[in-house]
Amino acid sequence: MVKIVEKQIIHFAQKAKEASRILALMDTRDKNHALVKMANALKAKKMYLMKENKKDLIAGKKAGLNKALLDRLMLDEKRIDAMRECLLDTAKLKDPVGELLHSFKRPNGLIIQKIRVPIGVVGIIYESRPNVTSDCIGLCLKSGNAVILKGGKEAFYSNKAIFAVLKSALKNTKIPVESIQMIDSTDRRGVEKLLMLSQYVDVIVPRGGENLIRFVAENSKIPVIKHYKGVCHVYVSDQANLQMAQEICFNAKVQRPGVCNAMETMLVHEKMAKKFLPAMIAQFMKAGVEIRGCDKTRKIFGENIKKATTQDWFEEYLDLILAVRVVKNTQEAISHINTFGSQHSDAIVTEDKKEAAQFLKEVDAACVYKNASTRFTDGYEFGFGAEVGISTDKIHVRGPMGLEGLTTYKYQVYGQGQIRN
Amino acid sequence: MVKIVEKQIIHFAQKAKEASRILALMDTRDKNHALVKMANALKAKKMYLMKENKKDLIAGKKAGLNKALLDRLMLDEKRIDAMRECLLDTAKLKDPVGELLHSFKRPNGLIIQKIRVPIGVVGIIYESRPNVTSDCIGLCLKSGNAVILKGGKEAFYSNKAIFAVLKSALKNTKIPVESIQMIDSTDRRGVEKLLMLSQYVDVIVPRGGENLIRFVAENSKIPVIKHYKGVCHVYVSDQANLQMAQEICFNAKVQRPGVCNAMETMLVHEKMAKKFLPAMIAQFMKAGVEIRGCDKTRKIFGENIKKATTQDWFEEYLDLILAVRVVKNTQEAISHINTFGSQHSDAIVTEDKKEAAQFLKEVDAACVYKNASTRFTDGYEFGFGAEVGISTDKIHVRGPMGLEGLTTYKYQVYGQGQIRN
Repeated sequence: MVKIVEKQIIHFAQKAKEASRILALMDTRDKNHALVKMANALKAKKMYLMKENKKDLIAGKKAGLNKALLDRLMLDEKRIDAMRECLLDTAKLKDPVGELLHSFKRPNGLIIQKIRVPIGVVGIIYESRPNVTSDCIGLCLKSGNAVILKGGKEAFYSNKAIFAVLKSALKNTKIPVESIQMIDSTDRRGVEKLLMLSQYVDVIVPRGGENLIRFVAENSKIPVIKHYKGVCHVYVSDQANLQMAQEICFNAKVQRPGVCNAMETMLVHEKMAKKFLPAMIAQFMKAGVEIRGCDKTRKIFGENIKKATTQDWFEEYLDLILAVRVVKNTQEAISHINTFGSQHSDAIVTEDKKEAAQFLKEVDAACVYKNASTRFTDGYEFGFGAEVGISTDKIHVRGPMGLEGLTTYKYQVYGQGQIRN
Repeated sequence: MVKIVEKQIIHFAQKAKEASRILALMDTRDKNHALVKMANALKAKKMYLMKENKKDLIAGKKAGLNKALLDRLMLDEKRIDAMRECLLDTAKLKDPVGELLHSFKRPNGLIIQKIRVPIGVVGIIYESRPNVTSDCIGLCLKSGNAVILKGGKEAFYSNKAIFAVLKSALKNTKIPVESIQMIDSTDRRGVEKLLMLSQYVDVIVPRGGENLIRFVAENSKIPVIKHYKGVCHVYVSDQANLQMAQEICFNAKVQRPGVCNAMETMLVHEKMAKKFLPAMIAQFMKAGVEIRGCDKTRKIFGENIKKATTQDWFEEYLDLILAVRVVKNTQEAISHINTFGSQHSDAIVTEDKKEAAQFLKEVDAACVYKNASTRFTDGYEFGFGAEVGISTDKIHVRGPMGLEGLTTYKYQVYGQGQIRN
């Protein structure tokens, strides 16, 4: 049984590699045509998709998944329509392939052109919502990459159905049907095998909990684009607009606490603390947020809030919990973030341009914000159509990974017979 | 003893990380000033460097290193001067840090700027010539990165001496002295420990034989930029200028056979073979090159040349050996390269523009050449000053890794109070 799964995965990977060679050379028009066909197919097969999704929902209830997880899993007409629109949006985006990134001439007459090209074969291992299946297929095809998908067991039937619908839609297009592959074994053996196939697969993007990502990173012979965690901060300066600060902090924590770009620690300038904290914390508590404060925070607000430990500064709660720390100045805020943060998304609220410039320059994170919520770190919000993942690595891609993140480059060098002395 | 080495390496890595925070914010002028100081120090300490290098040469002779290896190891006035000039050249290059790569405005008013920033701490593990020490220090400092070096045991005294001279030169500059670190233990334990320190080191670049690189790739918890091998091809089309083809092929194979960008397999269009091969192979044989030919090659030139096996198509000889294959057409040449090549450097010799365009587009390699020798794949030849390595990976950097390859980016996002709905 294991052997069969392994053989099947090697076969998928080989087919994907072959398809990627053809796909890399496809016209933009042909790729867009395929995206539109796939979008239409999602609409046409709506009932089938919801029927298959039901199986996952029933299994999920049986397995005791909580309400939030069941909600993430659920597909209704609106959500299928959003998947469809994401494919149509991706079709409208500029094709990154073939872009001339740089061109220069050497003293010996060689002309060197740096050209954007697809990576080749992308492996995506994910636990999350079923829409990831169609979003990732859309982004990979548009950027000229073949893709091998391995979804989580909770969404087994939904992923399989979405995949079948999209694959079938490819049949009447110029895109090779083998460009998209799905591993539908439900255990980790399939993943382990995939991670060995560096001769066929060029990059792996894991999406999900920290455990999954560490498992992938530690077992992969293929380069991995990682997203470990999002310990995001908002720093409220003494130069902040008070109401703006309150709105941004509330949004960053409460609007969707279970996601990676939600705020986990709020930092407040000591001169701002007395003015800002009492009303802000009260608003948070009213919304059901548990506060864990530093000594100064507790002095200002009261001992009825929990005391934060060093561990809290490292914590990605993904929940209605917030760590709060009063800092002496901007420098201390930056230093806190660079020490405890996860290089994901951090924001400053201030009216002082110089202070903002310092914060944006010195905070070492994929996305740094002045006067906006950290919640905007997202492929769709950045205008990338969707995202294959959000990288907290510094290698290859940082932040939301969209079409450009799915490309690499080659040097095309034009000579007139040059040889080296 | 092991414990002491491990503790020392952690200490180096922590210091490098701290220094990298300061270095990332340094002015171009201050970085250039340090590079010039370091260049001057190499000149001033020439005698000391040659004295220390002697120790390595004596140990190398004792250990039975061959002439070519001893030559690579040797430092004379001319070579020290070349190291000095490389630092001065690097000072003259444009500072990549702070470059605005892209700027765009979202419908909600957010302004997103993609800015080039240093990676942080770069670990370089190398076996090769002592000049790598100063080349890499120069490139890393100019691009705002701290660097941890681990050289090979053959160049132990030379590397240590170069490092000491450069570190001492940093003392009278604004650059933190701790920006450059060297691990001088001579076994692999030091490397193993370094590869664990993902909290301090952001990327590892191994330079050397395939064994070293596989060891690093398999043991690293830090992203690795790899260069496995250079199985480079020159394809001589039936549309080639005969003399140009002969010059390029001879240069690509013979000028320096022991390097990664030398040609290992020559492909010839079948309509060109009779005209081209006899004189070309005779010239190669006169230069001491052993030929391993396909059946058609042997039919044309004679059975006195060895028969090439499939293994030969995969081989990186790094020596005066050349595999030769006659192909039906350009498509077969491309397909051979994409099947057996190592995605390093491949060239076509042709006067036909359309054929060249097809070759350059379809061959999947870091550098693809029209009418020039593959030997140009090199940081210096590309105008990058020098190189930290040559990547055959597709992730982050491809081909020669210079200043740009040593950077990543961050998104700086400017809002006016935006929150997410």
